[in-house]
Amino acid sequence: MELRVLPDERVLVVQEGDNLLAVLNRSDINLIASCGGRGSCGRCLVDVIAGDLRFNRKRGKKCQLPEWAANQVLACNTTIHSDAVIMVPYDGRRLNAHKVLLNEIELENPYEFGPLFRRYSLQLPEPNLTENTDDLNRFLIELRKVTGLTDVRVNLDLMRRLPGCLREGNWRVSAVVSRVGNYAEVSDVSPWTLADKVYGLAVDIGTTTVKLNLVDLQDGTIIASAGDYNRQQQYGDDVINRIIYATEEPDGLDMLRQTGLAALNGLLEAMLTENGINPQQVVGAVVAGNTTMIHLFLGIPPKWLRLEPYIPAATTPQWVRGYEAGLLMNPQGLVFCLPAVGSYVGGDVTAGVLATQIARSDDLRILIDIGTNGEIVLGNRDFQISCACSAGPCFEGGGIKCGMRAMAGAIDKLEITPDYKVFFNTLEDQKPVGICGSGLINALAVMWRRGIIDRQGNLKRSLSTPRIKEFGDDGWGFVLVESRYTAFGREIFVLESEIKNVIRAKAAIFAGMRSLLNHLGLTMDLVTEVLIAGGFGNSLNIENAITIGMLPDLPAEKFRYVGNTALKGAQLVLTHQEAYTEIVDFSRGMTYLELSVGNDFMDEFISATFMPHTDLALFPSVR
Amino acid sequence: MELRVLPDERVLVVQEGDNLLAVLNRSDINLIASCGGRGSCGRCLVDVIAGDLRFNRKRGKKCQLPEWAANQVLACNTTIHSDAVIMVPYDGRRLNAHKVLLNEIELENPYEFGPLFRRYSLQLPEPNLTENTDDLNRFLIELRKVTGLTDVRVNLDLMRRLPGCLREGNWRVSAVVSRVGNYAEVSDVSPWTLADKVYGLAVDIGTTTVKLNLVDLQDGTIIASAGDYNRQQQYGDDVINRIIYATEEPDGLDMLRQTGLAALNGLLEAMLTENGINPQQVVGAVVAGNTTMIHLFLGIPPKWLRLEPYIPAATTPQWVRGYEAGLLMNPQGLVFCLPAVGSYVGGDVTAGVLATQIARSDDLRILIDIGTNGEIVLGNRDFQISCACSAGPCFEGGGIKCGMRAMAGAIDKLEITPDYKVFFNTLEDQKPVGICGSGLINALAVMWRRGIIDRQGNLKRSLSTPRIKEFGDDGWGFVLVESRYTAFGREIFVLESEIKNVIRAKAAIFAGMRSLLNHLGLTMDLVTEVLIAGGFGNSLNIENAITIGMLPDLPAEKFRYVGNTALKGAQLVLTHQEAYTEIVDFSRGMTYLELSVGNDFMDEFISATFMPHTDLALFPSVR
Repeated sequence: MELRVLPDERVLVVQEGDNLLAVLNRSDINLIASCGGRGSCGRCLVDVIAGDLRFNRKRGKKCQLPEWAANQVLACNTTIHSDAVIMVPYDGRRLNAHKVLLNEIELENPYEFGPLFRRYSLQLPEPNLTENTDDLNRFLIELRKVTGLTDVRVNLDLMRRLPGCLREGNWRVSAVVSRVGNYAEVSDVSPWTLADKVYGLAVDIGTTTVKLNLVDLQDGTIIASAGDYNRQQQYGDDVINRIIYATEEPDGLDMLRQTGLAALNGLLEAMLTENGINPQQVVGAVVAGNTTMIHLFLGIPPKWLRLEPYIPAATTPQWVRGYEAGLLMNPQGLVFCLPAVGSYVGGDVTAGVLATQIARSDDLRILIDIGTNGEIVLGNRDFQISCACSAGPCFEGGGIKCGMRAMAGAIDKLEITPDYKVFFNTLEDQKPVGICGSGLINALAVMWRRGIIDRQGNLKRSLSTPRIKEFGDDGWGFVLVESRYTAFGREIFVLESEIKNVIRAKAAIFAGMRSLLNHLGLTMDLVTEVLIAGGFGNSLNIENAITIGMLPDLPAEKFRYVGNTALKGAQLVLTHQEAYTEIVDFSRGMTYLELSVGNDFMDEFISATFMPHTDLALFPSVR
Repeated sequence: MELRVLPDERVLVVQEGDNLLAVLNRSDINLIASCGGRGSCGRCLVDVIAGDLRFNRKRGKKCQLPEWAANQVLACNTTIHSDAVIMVPYDGRRLNAHKVLLNEIELENPYEFGPLFRRYSLQLPEPNLTENTDDLNRFLIELRKVTGLTDVRVNLDLMRRLPGCLREGNWRVSAVVSRVGNYAEVSDVSPWTLADKVYGLAVDIGTTTVKLNLVDLQDGTIIASAGDYNRQQQYGDDVINRIIYATEEPDGLDMLRQTGLAALNGLLEAMLTENGINPQQVVGAVVAGNTTMIHLFLGIPPKWLRLEPYIPAATTPQWVRGYEAGLLMNPQGLVFCLPAVGSYVGGDVTAGVLATQIARSDDLRILIDIGTNGEIVLGNRDFQISCACSAGPCFEGGGIKCGMRAMAGAIDKLEITPDYKVFFNTLEDQKPVGICGSGLINALAVMWRRGIIDRQGNLKRSLSTPRIKEFGDDGWGFVLVESRYTAFGREIFVLESEIKNVIRAKAAIFAGMRSLLNHLGLTMDLVTEVLIAGGFGNSLNIENAITIGMLPDLPAEKFRYVGNTALKGAQLVLTHQEAYTEIVDFSRGMTYLELSVGNDFMDEFISATFMPHTDLALFPSVR
């Protein structure tokens, strides 16, 4: 049977009874399925043009999209029973319609160059009858002189190759040495030639995107940098859905692992080809990611991350080999995943602490990375304390009918005039598709300022504007963009219930910061700087975020965007032994405050579910 | 085509042009081919009963056996061209006609039990919301409490399995920990059960025989012990011939490696089956062997061992994994080869120093292991110095027409009456097949005492006995056993040229001992004890060895047989961390005196080519 997909004009060969979402995904027409294909998120909607596609409407009822037309089905609950034609518009539903923006903010690097994986040139003295040390020791003695290493592992393959290499190279050889903590090994030996070069990878595996740098280990230069969406989104938008998929589906864990790798290896292959580099030359990798992503990357069962008491299999996984990780690199090369602090404060966060030098300064700083979870670190050189507060998926477009990630076509900024006209900005200046997290924050701030909502997020339904209206069972909402101006002809709006959802999310983040401070008996005015990492980036308007009470009411100069600190942290560790030592040390010492027990998080949370806060004294500039 | 082999009555399927030796060897009818099948040793002689077997007599001419009958061919240079019938008598030519005797001499063990590979039972505290350490750290913390180890490697497979094991075992698990020097790793984890047991191997890979102990690592008990001939003899009798084979034949190294493994794994399989043990439970091995054997075992090119300046690829190979070594054991288990001192003083010798406690005592001792090479160690707790003197193969039956190894049917003791009658003893009381090393030593001593030879080994041809006669081109010799008394109807004799050969061999050994003493300005009378290890064992008559000047003229009580110290050393290291540390330490410090340069070995050697010595003052008891 054949399935024709428009507007791609691709024809896929399918079997009677195939699941439509699975067919599309395996053909690299990647739809986002936030719920992991369980029919509850309503994101995988496609238009049926012709054919017998059977949709299990009963399961689909969980997600009642108002714009659900008669010819539309949710791919996740649809099976194919004849030749068919469908339409999958290029919009927020498709992952590959967008490109991942690499964040270019530069941060200071205080470390001396010293990569974990390094190539040395060794000139050995030639043996004779009286100086007849064996090849291996002769090599190790010279290596010690150059590196200071006294205990270096050499595997059997190298022991077999060493005698030939030494003589072929006339006693001059190249040795690639990998050092991860106390462990050191020789990864490769060859007769010396000037041309040999070795490379390393700095990798950031995010829930939404994967990014990587290919690094020249001779000098630390970034040769190439690229990003892509994490294709695991097919199986669930957020970490919880992916953990469920990995745990409950047969082969789910392996499927997620392979899918995550596919994106990484795709980027890698392109980079290596373009630069004429052999995968053998890629001798090591450092990977940052949240705890779930690292479990999935390594194929470690993530099941217990979401079951009380939320125990990771490993916060600090030991290094693994390239072939075990499945990366397109030297199979014997080492892959090191940055240490996490707990189930919901991962190696991406410790990478951020490293990259922003929080643990090297006397100044008290807050680092905040807002995604599905708000991960917060408070600290200085003496201590670091962290927590993760469940903001829910709204800042990444989840649970919001017109929500979307910060991709092309997303409304990220907006203004509302006194007569309720809406002016907005979209990412990459495309026709609006939906609204992203920073757009939502701005929307709440301006709606409150214009008196459209009250401090609790209730819409003033009495206002005389057609933008305020009822959306069937979904209740009241506010139209941001009329249908004629949008990318695919449906109006973009925000529901009252969604506004309250965003208020709960911002409350969680603010309460998280307060809980960390309270735990140590500190106050917000002692904080020198609030560092904002991750997806929000430059889109986030600080003033608006303060207005709704998400960020504390501090002077503008105390806030700084730091970009993708996960990738930066991985890059630092890859090329600086000092950075490795530091991140391992401070991660081990960092406190993980579990907000669900034994602290005042719930009280703080409830106090923060007003705009900006029940205690207006905390927000003098807003009052 | 079919080849019938008598007296086995086995029928082998062969191809036109097949090499006869190769066909026999691959059918496990293992002939000794001292020369590696190059047609020069004349050991692979078989009787052709019927069929077209073409023997390249030209190449065969190198070895002119007097008893070479018209119907006999050398299998190594014979090809098969029709159905055929051959006879391969059960005698010294066949390896498998003999069983390897395990040496049972007990030596004192001064070490505290502490195996390199050990199973621990760990009871972990169950996590909760406030004590929420991850699984891996929780496990490592408990492991540290029990073992004191702070830096333990855990591989990816175990990281994946750990969370399930912990919960399945209700937080009680078994962990197998391997420690080799500073390196420690967890080799296996499973939910705890009382029944799990782990085992280790102590292995001795000799040029002639392989032996192994299967050891219960819970308490160090030897569960089973077995030995077999090293089938590599098909490719050469001594280390030099095997190095040549490994270097010059295509796939020669791999062939030798596989052939050596076959014997070991055969023994191992029988042991494991008999004791109901799964190879997975065999979690580690310690291997002793001379430097060449270890190169071959590990598949490391041995080429440079025999090329000046005789440099080993590795005297102290690092541990390898079971699957790399190819042993029938847990593929992830570690295999450690005992450290060598040089190309011709191997891990079998350092094992001997360990087993005899030379490096723990104030007493000055000599350890001597006589095979093809005489390996000698002189030392005490303060120093150890070693050398290898090339005795040639005569003590193992090589280069001696009627020579053979110390196997069933070998003459090991003899006496000659004044009227030239010869009384002899054979091993296992079988009809005499040939004469072994200790038999030769005894023969020389009694022949000299009876005036049959002079101090230089010249036969007194004038004596009136038919035993002294000419053997064609081979010159004069002395008949030890007339043909009617021997196992296969040919007389057993010793040639004058062979007697001189033995004198050179004993001279090399004595000169080696003297050179070591001279090098340090010491004299023989300071030596407390001379320890005799290896093949000679109890067969060697000390008085006769002193008479011919092979051993120094010391009182009988200063000599001690110590048996197979290689296997004992391996066993000690396997089950005692202390012994591991000691052997690594003293091996590193042990001097290797290269006798071919810069010392007085040649002078000592020439002085020793008389019986007992040119300087009779050195042998007061003989004079």
